[in-house]
Amino acid sequence: MSCPVEIISIGNELLIGKILNTNAQWLSRLITNLGGNVRRTTTVGDDLEEIASALNEAIARKPRFIITTGGLGPTFDDMTVEAVSRALDRPLRLNEQALEMVRERYRRYEARTGRRVDLSPARLKMARLPEGGGPLHNPVGTAPGVLIEVGGVSVVILPGVPEEMEAIFEGSVVPMIRGVAGPLSVYERSLRVTGMGEPEIAPLIERTMRDNPYVYVKSHPRRARPTPWIELHLMTTSDSEADAKVIVERAVEEVTRLIHLEGAEGGGCP
Amino acid sequence: MSCPVEIISIGNELLIGKILNTNAQWLSRLITNLGGNVRRTTTVGDDLEEIASALNEAIARKPRFIITTGGLGPTFDDMTVEAVSRALDRPLRLNEQALEMVRERYRRYEARTGRRVDLSPARLKMARLPEGGGPLHNPVGTAPGVLIEVGGVSVVILPGVPEEMEAIFEGSVVPMIRGVAGPLSVYERSLRVTGMGEPEIAPLIERTMRDNPYVYVKSHPRRARPTPWIELHLMTTSDSEADAKVIVERAVEEVTRLIHLEGAEGGGCP
Repeated sequence: MSCPVEIISIGNELLIGKILNTNAQWLSRLITNLGGNVRRTTTVGDDLEEIASALNEAIARKPRFIITTGGLGPTFDDMTVEAVSRALDRPLRLNEQALEMVRERYRRYEARTGRRVDLSPARLKMARLPEGGGPLHNPVGTAPGVLIEVGGVSVVILPGVPEEMEAIFEGSVVPMIRGVAGPLSVYERSLRVTGMGEPEIAPLIERTMRDNPYVYVKSHPRRARPTPWIELHLMTTSDSEADAKVIVERAVEEVTRLIHLEGAEGGGCP
Repeated sequence: MSCPVEIISIGNELLIGKILNTNAQWLSRLITNLGGNVRRTTTVGDDLEEIASALNEAIARKPRFIITTGGLGPTFDDMTVEAVSRALDRPLRLNEQALEMVRERYRRYEARTGRRVDLSPARLKMARLPEGGGPLHNPVGTAPGVLIEVGGVSVVILPGVPEEMEAIFEGSVVPMIRGVAGPLSVYERSLRVTGMGEPEIAPLIERTMRDNPYVYVKSHPRRARPTPWIELHLMTTSDSEADAKVIVERAVEEVTRLIHLEGAEGGGCP
């Protein structure tokens, strides 16, 4: 089944180029492998209106899931949950289940360190969710993730710290996407082509994709020295692992034959 | 002067998580250092409608610049220029200046290798620009960048290959952004804080930002072993380098003092 997904990354540190958006790549890779289709990713800053408008625009495009990362935590610039509350017009309420998750986390911290932790307003903030939302267990950090259903779109709010984002995603979101996409396998191969430029390869790719309609082929020029080369990436998804492999290998065979006919060299990628 | 910028990254390889979006980070960093404000970055696939709608939505938000990367080249899935043509309703025309750039590139290739290159349709495609657009010299590759003015928004179309994107940006786009943003300096410092969690630091940051309104402070938790720490990043832009330094150092002093009052340790980042 088709499972369109959008990702919204939140954080000024992304917009000033201080950090690379590794979260979006990690999520895109995993979602693709689960049979989902990432249609768009958007990055906005720590700004209530920007987050809210990006979310509402994504909802209007009706993906099955919207995953946000970042802006979930105790500090003043962690404003994703408030922005979602505004965007959806669902007021923030103290969620008992989320509060218990936050409490449990600090109880273990106190037991380990002997230091007492007060449930300050900054900490209580992590248990306030938009009405109708539920918390997602965070096995490695304090702020729980949040899940809210909005007219057929599941909005999933995750932290920006990669370890926490990945742990909540793997524990709570993977099963949801699997349930929608069904059991699907991805099969991919990379070929290395030398002695040929992208303009010469373009018609060969077109022909291969026409003959192998379920295979996606893309060329990536690699400016290596002394010999630049081109990577051909072939990929398919199928509900059978064996089928996916057969489908891609048939396309690999065809494109390799076409490349050799043109006098260039193609083969497995190192 | 304020110089809002949006970035649109184009390519299925980004949406399937095959590659990290290093182009968006590189551009964001450089634009910030030039005094521009990256407001939003969007990633879409190699799809005419997706590219066109992302572009029109960005234009509606009225940034001063929109920079696109990717989908600029000879292959069938390089469709950015065609998508821009559709989005802006400006038909594609063979641009003489662009054609001369492409020809010159192949002339040099022929002189170097002795191999003749035909100007195939795939190659001519790189010289077809939306009406009113002009080419931007590509010193390291074949496809020229494109610049189109749309009602106060400068739309800049760059290739996705990092070396080509960076070369065109540095040669043609940096002077344009500098011209709009004016001469500005960015000054930033990072502090390392141990013995304190984000919830304790949050109010100290709030107080520091209130007392130092031109300084942006952000905390980044670092899960190092055996001792996790928090990076505090302080930044400002100013039209004087000396002023920028003074403004940030004053905030560094204040936040360091507040952190020591709370009994934790703060200092220069390694």
